[in-house]
Amino acid sequence: MEIDVLKKYLDEDVALVSVMTGNNEIGTIQPIEEITKLVHEVGAYMHTDATQAIGKMPLSMKSWDVDYMSLSGHKFYGPKGIGVLAVKTKAPFEAFVHGGHQENGKRAGTYNTAAIVGLGVASEMAKRDIAVEAGKLWSLREMLRKGIEERIPNVVVNGSQEHCLPGTLDISFPSAEGESILLYLDMEGILVSTGSACASGSLEPSYVLLASGVDIELAHGSIRFSFGRYNTEADVQYVLEKLPPIIKRLRELSTR
Amino acid sequence: MEIDVLKKYLDEDVALVSVMTGNNEIGTIQPIEEITKLVHEVGAYMHTDATQAIGKMPLSMKSWDVDYMSLSGHKFYGPKGIGVLAVKTKAPFEAFVHGGHQENGKRAGTYNTAAIVGLGVASEMAKRDIAVEAGKLWSLREMLRKGIEERIPNVVVNGSQEHCLPGTLDISFPSAEGESILLYLDMEGILVSTGSACASGSLEPSYVLLASGVDIELAHGSIRFSFGRYNTEADVQYVLEKLPPIIKRLRELSTR
Repeated sequence: MEIDVLKKYLDEDVALVSVMTGNNEIGTIQPIEEITKLVHEVGAYMHTDATQAIGKMPLSMKSWDVDYMSLSGHKFYGPKGIGVLAVKTKAPFEAFVHGGHQENGKRAGTYNTAAIVGLGVASEMAKRDIAVEAGKLWSLREMLRKGIEERIPNVVVNGSQEHCLPGTLDISFPSAEGESILLYLDMEGILVSTGSACASGSLEPSYVLLASGVDIELAHGSIRFSFGRYNTEADVQYVLEKLPPIIKRLRELSTR
Repeated sequence: MEIDVLKKYLDEDVALVSVMTGNNEIGTIQPIEEITKLVHEVGAYMHTDATQAIGKMPLSMKSWDVDYMSLSGHKFYGPKGIGVLAVKTKAPFEAFVHGGHQENGKRAGTYNTAAIVGLGVASEMAKRDIAVEAGKLWSLREMLRKGIEERIPNVVVNGSQEHCLPGTLDISFPSAEGESILLYLDMEGILVSTGSACASGSLEPSYVLLASGVDIELAHGSIRFSFGRYNTEADVQYVLEKLPPIIKRLRELSTR
């Protein structure tokens, strides 16, 4: 986020600002601590969705001074169907799910005990392993990025390269349609995305790419590679072998 | 529910009526099919919460003609953290959780696949085993009811005995406080409730009992016994051995 853009909108009428810690499509990491200072200066509250960032970079609700932070269990090898909304003691909070008095009235419903325990264990593991995991993800990501740039002419790497989640690589391949690349890669057993998973099946270009200034043709030709705990260098080698002929073929078809 | 009470409130201004299939505290089963007819006559929609009833009595959204039916997975040996809201094709529906396009836009969020599959299997098992389970629960329930009536003077069995879920027995013990009975039984390893689990910890008498016409003193002295798949006749014998001296002792204390 351009801090200057945020500043234009911040005034006493603003009640709450919500900014993702790390973007789910292009991986760009936002300066949450700096943004929170500006938000608090106008008397607003600050929320950050750290779902993409947990286990991949250090998080600190306390040192960032955010009022609310949310997380999803299944994004850091915890269970599905559970997440966290951490709320600073003094921040206002109103229940979304009403009924029983569970969780001190903050969320009604029978506790999903197994998932709660699983989420706790996953959090501990994420914290314990973060340095090793993040380093490994970044080296795989960089191996793929360099390999693609060496093997495929005219590609554009999207998002900040300096402030990027270690496991995310979003690349545009001009003159090739992202959805076609996805389908060809899928046939080779390589699973990628053309945007967020929440928008899968949509043929619209990613609004994240468009909002970050990528032009519409490049946005249509973009692919997101995401790395996880179980990826290896052999996986990257395999992608580097399969991807170039696919892009070549699609570009030939597009110029007919 | 007294159908006549419902009729007093039903007119063209009513949009939706929601009635539990079987009550969670006293087990009373409502005539959902009959109620639905009245509700539809005034042009309103009908919802029933069948959470307490599934696996314990036959359910039919179709023959009852209800527009909405809800269920909770953990109430029929399925996973926690998942439930069902079944919506008739023509009934209006607006999403409660917004965001991604999952479940055809009806509920956003990453699918909790394991829980979904688990819920499906639990439903199949509930349907398959219903006759045997319901019969077994009712015979344990009746064994306990008769045993208590034989051994303890002056008890009142709450709720309809004709239309009652097979695994629920709610009894008032005048001159004994429900919360005290609960604590004494707990020390013997017998887990009961004084009302709904959602209100546990509250010392208020059950609003369900009060609404069904039980007087406040009796409501204060009520205990809910619930039976499940893993209860046995030996469990009932054990309760019948431990409960009478507890009630006797509490009644003695109350008359000091």
